[in-house]
Amino acid sequence: MIRVAINGYGTIGKRVADAAALQDDMKVAGVVKTRPSFEARIAVKKGFRLFTNTKDNIPAFNAVGIKISGTLDDLLKESDIVVDCTPGKVGAENKEKIYMPRKIKAIFQGGEKAKTVEASFNALCNYASCLGKNYIRVVSCNTTGLCRTLGTIDRAFGIKKARVTLVRRGADPADADTGPINAIVPDPAEVPSHHGPDVKTILPNIDIITSAMVVPTTLMHVHSVGITLSRPATREEVISAFQNASRIILVSAADGIDSTAKVMEYARELGRPRSDLYEIAIWKESINVIGDELFWTQAVHQESDVVPENIDAIRAVTGIEKDAHKSIAKTNKNLGMIK
Amino acid sequence: MIRVAINGYGTIGKRVADAAALQDDMKVAGVVKTRPSFEARIAVKKGFRLFTNTKDNIPAFNAVGIKISGTLDDLLKESDIVVDCTPGKVGAENKEKIYMPRKIKAIFQGGEKAKTVEASFNALCNYASCLGKNYIRVVSCNTTGLCRTLGTIDRAFGIKKARVTLVRRGADPADADTGPINAIVPDPAEVPSHHGPDVKTILPNIDIITSAMVVPTTLMHVHSVGITLSRPATREEVISAFQNASRIILVSAADGIDSTAKVMEYARELGRPRSDLYEIAIWKESINVIGDELFWTQAVHQESDVVPENIDAIRAVTGIEKDAHKSIAKTNKNLGMIK
Repeated sequence: MIRVAINGYGTIGKRVADAAALQDDMKVAGVVKTRPSFEARIAVKKGFRLFTNTKDNIPAFNAVGIKISGTLDDLLKESDIVVDCTPGKVGAENKEKIYMPRKIKAIFQGGEKAKTVEASFNALCNYASCLGKNYIRVVSCNTTGLCRTLGTIDRAFGIKKARVTLVRRGADPADADTGPINAIVPDPAEVPSHHGPDVKTILPNIDIITSAMVVPTTLMHVHSVGITLSRPATREEVISAFQNASRIILVSAADGIDSTAKVMEYARELGRPRSDLYEIAIWKESINVIGDELFWTQAVHQESDVVPENIDAIRAVTGIEKDAHKSIAKTNKNLGMIK
Repeated sequence: MIRVAINGYGTIGKRVADAAALQDDMKVAGVVKTRPSFEARIAVKKGFRLFTNTKDNIPAFNAVGIKISGTLDDLLKESDIVVDCTPGKVGAENKEKIYMPRKIKAIFQGGEKAKTVEASFNALCNYASCLGKNYIRVVSCNTTGLCRTLGTIDRAFGIKKARVTLVRRGADPADADTGPINAIVPDPAEVPSHHGPDVKTILPNIDIITSAMVVPTTLMHVHSVGITLSRPATREEVISAFQNASRIILVSAADGIDSTAKVMEYARELGRPRSDLYEIAIWKESINVIGDELFWTQAVHQESDVVPENIDAIRAVTGIEKDAHKSIAKTNKNLGMIK
């Protein structure tokens, strides 16, 4: 039974904690939060042992009646691995100052740079190459989405080149501080964006160029994907490849799922925790092969698609499961995923 | 002096009326509105003669004290040409039932199908081929934007293929009835969208495939453009081609114009009527040549980019100016455009 510490209990941390608690080969040793909040209170109610970064933080929790089990330092002593879900760049600091001196393995998130870690991770693409590593990062939500679908097409037909426009949500649903309210923001203004190189940390041989913009929504990123194929494929073969792939689902406007809002409504109807959707949703109507080119449009739930990846990453790094497909199947089953 | 009737005084009609009134070789014979509204009242205050479709509509205007000069029929008798700015598909009906029987030339908007007219029109691309025609249409705002920039690159370097993702504004600023509020809507869900074929009504030889989605903004469409060039070009040569082209401007995030909202703020600072921007704005940072591929991101002011095109279309159809560049230069000068 692998003992997992979750450092950082925000958007990703709270989800990874719940997901880890649902596995039969790992348990949550504790979760770490800097400040008291409704989420800290709920973590304790859920039965998680709650820790905070330093002793100095403890009085603030005591003051509002939230029970603290100790510090991050205390937690790491009782853990086999830490999943770092702190804000971007904090992870790199934690690695140097905390995890390396204590010789504890760590998994970071996409907000950390690739050079911070030994390898970037996507379960479907490169599980085996991360086996036994000490420091890896689960790539960002956008990169995870692209790796799942591009990886599937690359394995099935070969990708000569991929050209992608990312239309990103402006803020997460609970974030009232971020814009835009009424603008489309090229972000970055430069083309290409950093997303292409980030995909190449997982799929180094794909010729990919991306551009990106931000729009005033909170529900999912959308990717407009154009591929030049290495080998011929029919639309039916592409649909079949996606249907057979794990963590990718096909949705249809004809079935009423005609926007990101409807994809999220689908997740709510499925009864998913927090109404999350771990899978990448591809609009079936958008899949089209024209000559040697393949097109599709996909939606990525920015808060949750990396959650199953973090669970698999724990297995890969600790070596408790050597087979990617067995880990993926176990994670999917325990999280109630479609496939 | 060409006498111009404007049938339909909504988003496009009111702008075309003002623009035509600023030219020295045409005058506005009158504008036609179905129902009384603040816009009808302002039209009369501006000195436009106001007409309505049928006699039955007149009492509604009289009731609120707005002076009506007669019916559409009366206006057409005193006009050399009509610019039809009615809602999409109404124009086709008007052509059959009203304009053809009265043998009056007509210019339609992008909401009408290409087959309704003898030719589709974009001043920079095909002015000459529309000379003397009886029924043409100014293509939609998105198609106008693509024709201006793709046409410029095709003439300068040749386009082997163009792949474009259109991110469309959900509603115009004054439209409180349209969504989405918090969703990205693939529209259509299918790829390709109709925009590619629409561009080909103007630039038939361009291999273009488009996909499109709608987002919750009111300020400008954004196009993410990827081109495969026929002949080599450097980034500097591309910038130079855009700089030399009419009705295209380069903006820069480094200069503070980092979103569609800022592009519109730029138009406001320029003192444009209604804070419109007739030009297509390309983010300079986005222009990039990688191998034989060219990328850029552009913004299209959906309410106004077709306005100068309508003025040029009047000159082409009536034949009062045979030279495209002279018409464009005159229109640009009279509208106070940058170039």
